[in-house]
Amino acid sequence: MYSKVNPRILDLLYKIAGKDFVSTDAETLDKFSRDETENLSFLPEVVVKPASALQISEILKLANEHLIPVYTRGGGTGLSGGALAVHGGIVISMERFNKIIEIDKENFQVTVEAGVITQVFQEELEKEGLFYPVDPASRGSCFIGGNIAECSGGPRAAKYGVTRNYVLALEFVTPEGEIIFTGSRTIKNVTGYSLAQLLTGSEGTLGIITKIVFRVLSLPEFKKLLLIAFNSVNDCISSVSEIYRSGVNPAALEFLEKAAIKAAESQLSKVFPNSEAEAQLLIEIDGNDEEQLNSEVGKIADTIEKFNPLDIILAEDRSKMEELWALRRSVGEAVKSISTYKEEDTVVPRAKMPELLEGVRKITGKYGIRAICYGHAGDGNLHVNILKDKLSDGFWNKNIKTAVKEIFELTVSLGGTISGEHGIGYSQKEYLSIALSEEEINLSKKIKKVFDPNGILNPGKIFTD
Amino acid sequence: MYSKVNPRILDLLYKIAGKDFVSTDAETLDKFSRDETENLSFLPEVVVKPASALQISEILKLANEHLIPVYTRGGGTGLSGGALAVHGGIVISMERFNKIIEIDKENFQVTVEAGVITQVFQEELEKEGLFYPVDPASRGSCFIGGNIAECSGGPRAAKYGVTRNYVLALEFVTPEGEIIFTGSRTIKNVTGYSLAQLLTGSEGTLGIITKIVFRVLSLPEFKKLLLIAFNSVNDCISSVSEIYRSGVNPAALEFLEKAAIKAAESQLSKVFPNSEAEAQLLIEIDGNDEEQLNSEVGKIADTIEKFNPLDIILAEDRSKMEELWALRRSVGEAVKSISTYKEEDTVVPRAKMPELLEGVRKITGKYGIRAICYGHAGDGNLHVNILKDKLSDGFWNKNIKTAVKEIFELTVSLGGTISGEHGIGYSQKEYLSIALSEEEINLSKKIKKVFDPNGILNPGKIFTD
Repeated sequence: MYSKVNPRILDLLYKIAGKDFVSTDAETLDKFSRDETENLSFLPEVVVKPASALQISEILKLANEHLIPVYTRGGGTGLSGGALAVHGGIVISMERFNKIIEIDKENFQVTVEAGVITQVFQEELEKEGLFYPVDPASRGSCFIGGNIAECSGGPRAAKYGVTRNYVLALEFVTPEGEIIFTGSRTIKNVTGYSLAQLLTGSEGTLGIITKIVFRVLSLPEFKKLLLIAFNSVNDCISSVSEIYRSGVNPAALEFLEKAAIKAAESQLSKVFPNSEAEAQLLIEIDGNDEEQLNSEVGKIADTIEKFNPLDIILAEDRSKMEELWALRRSVGEAVKSISTYKEEDTVVPRAKMPELLEGVRKITGKYGIRAICYGHAGDGNLHVNILKDKLSDGFWNKNIKTAVKEIFELTVSLGGTISGEHGIGYSQKEYLSIALSEEEINLSKKIKKVFDPNGILNPGKIFTD
Repeated sequence: MYSKVNPRILDLLYKIAGKDFVSTDAETLDKFSRDETENLSFLPEVVVKPASALQISEILKLANEHLIPVYTRGGGTGLSGGALAVHGGIVISMERFNKIIEIDKENFQVTVEAGVITQVFQEELEKEGLFYPVDPASRGSCFIGGNIAECSGGPRAAKYGVTRNYVLALEFVTPEGEIIFTGSRTIKNVTGYSLAQLLTGSEGTLGIITKIVFRVLSLPEFKKLLLIAFNSVNDCISSVSEIYRSGVNPAALEFLEKAAIKAAESQLSKVFPNSEAEAQLLIEIDGNDEEQLNSEVGKIADTIEKFNPLDIILAEDRSKMEELWALRRSVGEAVKSISTYKEEDTVVPRAKMPELLEGVRKITGKYGIRAICYGHAGDGNLHVNILKDKLSDGFWNKNIKTAVKEIFELTVSLGGTISGEHGIGYSQKEYLSIALSEEEINLSKKIKKVFDPNGILNPGKIFTD
């Protein structure tokens, strides 16, 4: 159905973006054929690095006319293959959209281009006493535009919400090449449909986001971090709801089981305290009143008492806190380096986490496969990494899909859904109907068609054909 | 284009909803012909009060088949005519959807039917120590489903956000009669397009919302309220940004000019303190640490010193606070009772409020018309009430539209938009193109068509034909 990028198209791309920014060499194509999702690889035919929304508009008009697939590429840290060129065609890399256009301290708003690295964005804001709380583990290399596409969450969602809660306005280019600025620089806005909210989390299938206006917060003055070790996974995960019940609202509350910490130790070549404990919680609290934080530390310590904690480590200086966060952030990559794997981004209401974890154990146990679990317990987002280890290809291929399906069915039955922050993308689309009704999927496909009548933008994602 | 409700249709409606819940008497039709918007009135042909999503589905299938317009009616407190039967047809009143289905304290979530009154919802939550911060002035009679439709804001948006920030999942019925549950009981969710967010703020044009899952917060333990009187409107409004700059993040920050307070006094037959002052700020602060609140009161007092405050009143007990809030909440109705009027729901970035206010003065001054302004200064949402007073119909009709157009152009040029929380509905649709590009409007109309191919649900709203 799609056309190939022939020499004439290539020539037109040179004219639009400049020859230096159009690559067809094997090395570049190979680099852009993968993201951080499992072992997927799809070669694009060409990688273009445009410099403006206008150039993107011209590329999309060309692609739309000639039915060539186009994929938007951020930092390449995706975990559902959302940016991969599954039908070949053009990859548009957003790396030149790297300007923070305006930090408006007066109104607590920031305007950025889509290719700014999330950590750079966060750190520039911090210099001004401002705070962007969404904090994906990949923040060192992911792009803020990709965060919009996947509605990134991270550890601070329970207290601070997810990406969509910070998006006020977007500039995006439709697959037909129209440049639209939607939303306004205000928290309140009920002027037409919220296309900005519709685009957030639409995984690059409805338009190419070029510019974002975020609302941001005032940077909390104080932070403290607790690492609490438990003798039992069940005690550890069961304490989470109790902590919230005590009235504390942590900025982050992360769950790590032993195997995850062990993997991180080996990845970072470090030894972490209490790494023999069966499970640990990493809890960040923040605020403007240090005494209140101290009292919250006390409340947490009191609350977990009955869950038999092995040890509580309190980190109060920045470097110690960074070290513990580095442990947490390295877990994803560390676990994945163990073996071929399949990661699930399950999410349930927070209090259902113990049930989810137990269910995952039962399901993987039944199929004789190993799963390492960790994630954002504060908001019920559990990353389940199923490892192939030394299982035969035959056994793996036979059982993995059934196991994943059962895990997702469990997730949905607990009131949750099948992706909290990684997206459906390419790798999870066959499971979509577990979470969404046929009617909702049909409606969504029709919305896709409104934006992209010829299906050229990020085809092969979210929906099965 | 639309068909009439003939006796056969009426008979089918009786069968669906029960004869007791289908009204065609003049009194009922008259009551449902109006909301709180200016002097608009459009008679429906029939008012139906269904009891379930299934009944709504059947009504919509019937209406869709016979091309009969359908309008969803909440508490009837709309300020843009969004629920009015501008093409006749069927009004569906949601008053029987009045159950709070589940208060899930464990997960800080609540499931409610769409016809629950907002204040009832808030108060039931308070009993459980929970907090739903969205607080429209009409909370005593508006329905929570209408709040979703209009993405209600109210005074607490700057600190706590608007309705969409609390919507996790929705059950809605499409104009073709499909019942869809979209979203999940989780803060994180990137599983398909966010239809829940698209429906929020879509003013009843995409579906009939029957059930909502909200996330809610923990009720802050302490509250304080300040009423600060100023000698000059400019001093008053200019102090707002300075208060935020001092690091205080008020739960609400309301602006009232003298004429608004005078109107409220006369409406409530009460005399309020300092009501001769040119303008006043009503500031609520909240939190779990009373000492911190006291220190914030001090910060606010210090900050406003240079803006020549006349007086500061501090209310700390519940009844005194309620009295001051009653003043604020009565202003809308009070101002409207003065004369024929046209209300604009302008919103700009907070720091642009002084410019907006000055511009509104200039524009209304130029046309010799009077405007009373008040609103949510914390989030830049200024309600501009233009009064006809004793102007002739000819003069009024000649100038009002041009004046409104100029006010909206100013609003948009300041980075804001033309409706913060009242919606476009029927009364503002002719101004939509001031805020949205032709491309965005076209895209939005196509989305409307996906949900409602025959245009039977709430026709004549948001878009001009």
